[in-house]
Amino acid sequence: MAKLYVIGIGPGRRENMTLRAINALIKSEVIVGYTPYIEYLEELVEGKEIISTGMKGEIERCKLAIESVREGKNTSIVSTGDAGLYGMAGPILELAKDIEVEIVPGVTAAFSAAGELGSPIMHDFCSISLSDLLTPWSLIEKRIENAAAADFVITIYNPRSKGRKKHIEKAVEIMLKYKSPSTPVGIVKNSGRDGQEQIITTLGNIDYKKIDMLCVLIIGNSMTYIENDHMITPRGYDL
Amino acid sequence: MAKLYVIGIGPGRRENMTLRAINALIKSEVIVGYTPYIEYLEELVEGKEIISTGMKGEIERCKLAIESVREGKNTSIVSTGDAGLYGMAGPILELAKDIEVEIVPGVTAAFSAAGELGSPIMHDFCSISLSDLLTPWSLIEKRIENAAAADFVITIYNPRSKGRKKHIEKAVEIMLKYKSPSTPVGIVKNSGRDGQEQIITTLGNIDYKKIDMLCVLIIGNSMTYIENDHMITPRGYDL
Ligand SMILES: C[S@@+](CC[C@H](N)C(=O)[O-])C[C@H]1O[C@@H](n2cnc3c(N)ncnc32)[C@H](O)[C@@H]1O
Ligand SMILES: C[S@@+](CC[C@H](N)C(=O)[O-])C[C@H]1O[C@@H](n2cnc3c(N)ncnc32)[C@H](O)[C@@H]1O
Repeated sequence: MAKLYVIGIGPGRRENMTLRAINALIKSEVIVGYTPYIEYLEELVEGKEIISTGMKGEIERCKLAIESVREGKNTSIVSTGDAGLYGMAGPILELAKDIEVEIVPGVTAAFSAAGELGSPIMHDFCSISLSDLLTPWSLIEKRIENAAAADFVITIYNPRSKGRKKHIEKAVEIMLKYKSPSTPVGIVKNSGRDGQEQIITTLGNIDYKKIDMLCVLIIGNSMTYIENDHMITPRGYDL
Repeated sequence: MAKLYVIGIGPGRRENMTLRAINALIKSEVIVGYTPYIEYLEELVEGKEIISTGMKGEIERCKLAIESVREGKNTSIVSTGDAGLYGMAGPILELAKDIEVEIVPGVTAAFSAAGELGSPIMHDFCSISLSDLLTPWSLIEKRIENAAAADFVITIYNPRSKGRKKHIEKAVEIMLKYKSPSTPVGIVKNSGRDGQEQIITTLGNIDYKKIDMLCVLIIGNSMTYIENDHMITPRGYDL
């Protein structure tokens, strides 16, 4: 029976894919994804039927992928990072009750960025998306508030887009109620792929113009420090 | 110059490793790690110098790995899951200021487990470790409280060991102040490796005896539901 693979391809560059993701692509006749993500796959998609659509077509892509499996073709639908965090695994399982689905996890953007910045996560952390397309902004604010008040490391996805320029400024304002302005912040654009850029700064000194939707942010906890251009959150060992 | 690779090997089975992790192991003369993790690597470590120590030797292992690089040998130190979450990246960067270090991210236990359970994370989530060896229990309680109050999905690492039998019960008690007893909970033991077992239950019905330190837990948010033996957190799309 044909199968649907919901694949997290990691941040972009081939080397960050798991063997399992690569094997699932090899086993697929049809590959579905947002056009730039398909490009990361390079020759892994050669000779395959490609269904790619623009930015807003998430649900359309899910439906096309499910349709393709119902027609008897092994199909992969790809997300960047992990498939199960702000990815395609949810909508696929909500829509596809009648077909076999395999979720293939991947390295999420925040962990890829963390490796480039040093060891900024290391400890308890929260992941928060600033996109209020699908989540009320009041709930996002409450999450930022509670995460900051309990001294979590905070990773921010979808930090800033043309339509949401001020959300990140508002988020930082809330964090500053609990976190010191000297708290280290790492901003990584295009982590793990061409065009990678990173900035290590502090919560009081963020240059918002540098942030766009290709960035992920990591805000430290009260123990995080900067040394040798690395952002380090200690695990707490007596070294 | 010799280099230290700090590698997240993923949950265990080879297929969950990234190409980058495999390549780093291939480039290393010396591999350092907790004995069972070295076993997951199988023939990838053949012909290499192995330095493995028991459970409590984390810092000892870090020091031995750094020493090996100082002697001029390319060396890998391995963590399961991701290297930067409750892993070796932090202590290595804290201890090794004089050598070249590359952090190689991996698929963390919670994301591997999520793929096995369905799509339980999907949305904003917090990762909390119940180990109070290095973190005061009062801070862990505060984090659980704040995460539950803001309706985060919560992933729990180090949920229960012989010395910490009651921590998970206390954690659930705190979550029940904010989350309904019918909130779905996924418990995965040995995710992504031999001996994998999973349970989908609810916050009011957890069988604590089934939980040990080889398990990771995922507690849903208020939208999470169980269907077809899957645990699903909707992303919020109008499907
Ligand atoms: C819809 S979410 C998808 C997240 C993805 N499933 C993951 O696990 O990384 C899109 C957001 O992820 C972040 N992101 C994804 N890939 C990234 C990368 N390579 N570098 C930096 N941020 C990235 C950005 O914050 C972006 O706005
Ligand atoms: C010290 S932490 C290491 C976490 C690891 N660095 C990661 O990113 O997954 C150890 C805890 O991780 C979780 N864990 C690690 N590997 C696991 C697996 N394959 N299945 C279930 N839980 C796992 C368990 O909760 C365990 O007590």
